[in-house]
Amino acid sequence: MNKEIALEKLEGGGITAVRGISAAAVNCGLKKEKDDLALVYSESAAAAAGLFTRNLVQAAPVQLCREVIANPVQAVVVNSGNANACTGAVGLENARKMAAAAAGALGLSPEQVLVCSTGVIGQQLPVEQVTAGLVRAAGSLSTEGSAGRRAAEAILTTDRTTKEAAYRGYYRGVPFHLAGMAKGSGMICPDMATMLAFLYTDLRASRALLQRLLREAVERSFNLITIDGDTSTNDTVLALANGAAPLEEVVEGSELAKALAEMLVELCQELAYQIVSDGEGATKVITLTVQGAPDAVAARILARAVLNSPLVKTAFYGEDANWGRIMAALGYAGVAFDPGKVDIFLGPLQVAAGGGAVDFSESEARTILQSREIAVRVALNAGPASLTAWGTDLSHEYVSINSHYRS
Amino acid sequence: MNKEIALEKLEGGGITAVRGISAAAVNCGLKKEKDDLALVYSESAAAAAGLFTRNLVQAAPVQLCREVIANPVQAVVVNSGNANACTGAVGLENARKMAAAAAGALGLSPEQVLVCSTGVIGQQLPVEQVTAGLVRAAGSLSTEGSAGRRAAEAILTTDRTTKEAAYRGYYRGVPFHLAGMAKGSGMICPDMATMLAFLYTDLRASRALLQRLLREAVERSFNLITIDGDTSTNDTVLALANGAAPLEEVVEGSELAKALAEMLVELCQELAYQIVSDGEGATKVITLTVQGAPDAVAARILARAVLNSPLVKTAFYGEDANWGRIMAALGYAGVAFDPGKVDIFLGPLQVAAGGGAVDFSESEARTILQSREIAVRVALNAGPASLTAWGTDLSHEYVSINSHYRS
Repeated sequence: MNKEIALEKLEGGGITAVRGISAAAVNCGLKKEKDDLALVYSESAAAAAGLFTRNLVQAAPVQLCREVIANPVQAVVVNSGNANACTGAVGLENARKMAAAAAGALGLSPEQVLVCSTGVIGQQLPVEQVTAGLVRAAGSLSTEGSAGRRAAEAILTTDRTTKEAAYRGYYRGVPFHLAGMAKGSGMICPDMATMLAFLYTDLRASRALLQRLLREAVERSFNLITIDGDTSTNDTVLALANGAAPLEEVVEGSELAKALAEMLVELCQELAYQIVSDGEGATKVITLTVQGAPDAVAARILARAVLNSPLVKTAFYGEDANWGRIMAALGYAGVAFDPGKVDIFLGPLQVAAGGGAVDFSESEARTILQSREIAVRVALNAGPASLTAWGTDLSHEYVSINSHYRS
Repeated sequence: MNKEIALEKLEGGGITAVRGISAAAVNCGLKKEKDDLALVYSESAAAAAGLFTRNLVQAAPVQLCREVIANPVQAVVVNSGNANACTGAVGLENARKMAAAAAGALGLSPEQVLVCSTGVIGQQLPVEQVTAGLVRAAGSLSTEGSAGRRAAEAILTTDRTTKEAAYRGYYRGVPFHLAGMAKGSGMICPDMATMLAFLYTDLRASRALLQRLLREAVERSFNLITIDGDTSTNDTVLALANGAAPLEEVVEGSELAKALAEMLVELCQELAYQIVSDGEGATKVITLTVQGAPDAVAARILARAVLNSPLVKTAFYGEDANWGRIMAALGYAGVAFDPGKVDIFLGPLQVAAGGGAVDFSESEARTILQSREIAVRVALNAGPASLTAWGTDLSHEYVSINSHYRS
């Protein structure tokens, strides 16, 4: 990075680290015990970029966001406990009512409000509760870190932990910020975008530039994680740039654009890793590097096949160095390579060479596999492309969570 | 079916119901407690048809079978406990030694022997134990039903039950037979062929006809089941026609060819259902019918997506009528349809209409879901194609089995 620019991570920081961003959270009755409705407000209108699920079944709020996102945006509303998906025309009307309620309470027009929902599919929202909650939330907006944290808690469903990260940069001594929050623990196999993630910066940037940088960052982060291979109906990543930092506009090719691009990748990877780490029932986080693939698309397909294989995932849960299951998953992924050239490593330990067994120490393997974070490296020796992706194991707890989620 | 032909199922029958077929099983030390080596012998040379895994990683015995299958065949050797996959040149040599040992003991040439293996991937076979076992097996071949049953037991790995079925037909009063055995409980998501299945008939047919009929039957049976989405390295279906029944050759377009085709479909569907029913940790068997798909390929892709979704599978395990997860899986399958036209039924009970909720009785749904066998119907209203496929739920037991399998 250029020496005119310095960068630091703000430990414990969240979205309200960004200038002009305030947040609030309330319980509106969708969930019994925790806040279930978050409101995030930007003092000034922000350029908004978004990436949405490629699932053919798209939730009502996703449809609304697609319509609205070209406008300068000042508020984002998020509820947990109900996905407002498979809810037809009534669902879309309810999403519009949420935008209208937030706009009314904040003195905005509804086209300046983005709406997201997450939770159970196929049930209508009790929309009066939600709109009443939004009025309460608008009255308690705060720029405190604790308000950002409460918003990050309110958007969670089966998640056990909040996902937040914040960075501060200095350009010629002037501070600027990039921060985000996310949710996601199950139905995680993002395609094009992901679960829910909300990224804010007080830099000023055009929507077009922000969209391009967001797409690149998401390709290198959220789109490389999988928990269960299920692409959600509600996946959404939003990035808002409100220009509240006293700096010139970020333009294509500038040092500041490069800095923002790097920070976005770092933020998205940080939040993506937090999501995987909190994967439903996860006892392991697998960082899988595929090396020597024919091309990047092939590398991604292979990584997905390995990280989605129930047999590979249960082997990691059982702390079993069952590399044969990795070979089988690579083999059915649908990518051409020579199985006789594949080397597989667990951490520093080689467990397969030339597609076959090597004589490795089972006790050394067990030590590596007992750790919560496991690095796996697959060297295909079939080309120049490399890629790192993240996944989880498959545990009894995953089955427990998902066999009892709806009821 | 033509009235010159009559057909009956032989309850409790297996491969030795077919004339000229004898079987034996022994323990050769690959598994501790059960028989692990099966030998099946045909008195006369048989035309052999085969379908093999499309996994790029192909086990040594699959490679050998592909070479040998064009020959008239008299013996099939199958071991469990070791897949002889990812074992390189040594593995292929070991498969050849198995064929040679069986040939030597039976007075055949090695090119008349097919070899299959199933079990752990990536370990070399203790081939001397196996060849010694084959000599013992050759000495105890029998045409008794109990010998067929022992062979069906010897080929099992994590399976809990044998998979066998036998049919007798009469053509102008002359009896003929079709029977088979199979194994498979995990790493089941057949593509092109399946796990291991061995089909025998005492009809006489050309290899070309047998191969075509086998391919059609497998497309309508084994290729429509999935347990965990993992396509094995060893999937093999073999069909042998030894001509021991005193009947004319089965030729294309004849009544007998039609009868054989129908019987093959019935046998393959029966064995496929037995495999799903014994799926690792399965507490439910899901029979999924996709109706009104744009075409058969689309219907198959959609059925696979639903039956492989961990979220759908855990919902069935939890006996939860969570149809939203079915909608989500359909949506990410990659097939074009209008989500707003989808109807979903559990047994006779409609749970979704036009892609959204209907007001159904939760207690009625629970009663349906408490049964071990559950019929699910998805009507896409997007075209003329329909298809039925089979899958299982995802249980705690599945995780237990697969986190401890290798060790």
